[in-house]
Amino acid sequence: MYENILKNVTRFISLTPEEETFFTDLLVCKSIPKKTVLLREGEICQFEGFIHKGCLRMYCLNDKGVEVTILFAIEDWWISDIASFQDQVSSKLYIETLEDSEIYMLDPTTKEKLLQEVPKFERVFRMLVQRNLSTLQNRLVSTIAESASERYLEFIKVYPSIPQRVAQYYIASYLGVSKEFVSTIRKRLASKGK
Amino acid sequence: MYENILKNVTRFISLTPEEETFFTDLLVCKSIPKKTVLLREGEICQFEGFIHKGCLRMYCLNDKGVEVTILFAIEDWWISDIASFQDQVSSKLYIETLEDSEIYMLDPTTKEKLLQEVPKFERVFRMLVQRNLSTLQNRLVSTIAESASERYLEFIKVYPSIPQRVAQYYIASYLGVSKEFVSTIRKRLASKGK
Repeated sequence: MYENILKNVTRFISLTPEEETFFTDLLVCKSIPKKTVLLREGEICQFEGFIHKGCLRMYCLNDKGVEVTILFAIEDWWISDIASFQDQVSSKLYIETLEDSEIYMLDPTTKEKLLQEVPKFERVFRMLVQRNLSTLQNRLVSTIAESASERYLEFIKVYPSIPQRVAQYYIASYLGVSKEFVSTIRKRLASKGK
Repeated sequence: MYENILKNVTRFISLTPEEETFFTDLLVCKSIPKKTVLLREGEICQFEGFIHKGCLRMYCLNDKGVEVTILFAIEDWWISDIASFQDQVSSKLYIETLEDSEIYMLDPTTKEKLLQEVPKFERVFRMLVQRNLSTLQNRLVSTIAESASERYLEFIKVYPSIPQRVAQYYIASYLGVSKEFVSTIRKRLASKGK
């Protein structure tokens, strides 16, 4: 049951059997149906979640009220609005499940307990936040610097399985283009054998 | 000499006098003239720097080759392309000084030595990366979701001293508008008493 999450954190640190148990005892496993909104703009994010199964997305609304997908997250990824979670301030983001999902969650209290008791988890969370930062930074640079076709190529590199799992609408909302344009890019790349 | 940087890190952890000395002995202080590029696209970022004095910016080139400022950093901020630094991969970003600056730098070897010797620095760097992530996330949401006037208001909230310190050109390149438009927004806000 906890094999995946333990594999995920022991990339960065090693744990004794007692520490493993202490960690997994703090996790709350939630089964969440698809299309459930876990966080809304204006709310405070109370979870940092490891995706055991499923697919989620984080999005915001643009100045015309249109949803813009910021990132997708699937098995073995962590998801949270860490800025809101850490400082307990209102989020500007939404997080929702796109598939039926199983998520192992920490809340601010259990996370602090874990860090107090097993301080080497500081390293785990530092590495996770760094990866999150790296993803967001690439997302920002790609929004600023790349054409829609380049953004699509970058997207399938980061998320190779997503095109098979989510509706084209969500991919369009990530790339900032219309659904029709996603089809056009995919056909164009398919004809080039990409 | 090290007062500011020690104050900066002891927000998150407490240090013994020996740990303080171990930390400060690892820092390399560099005086860097203004308009020096410290990192270029394609290079690997070899520093994580605390700004003791000065002002820097991080930017990328958009698909038309125009500079887009991603963030500014002044006294008491840290600056690095942490994604490039951590995984030793090519950066997509540029970092340059806008004023004569004094920066305390760690490189990958000295940072690792610090974390090995004083593991509680994991917490410091986790908190710093989280703040960096929070800044970038707000930057991304504001790029996606807000009008130019709202972006300017957000900008002066995050960087109250920057309008007095840098040329209007850089502020325009942060907001994604023309220099003239920055003037117009500032006049409009001044007449409203903001």
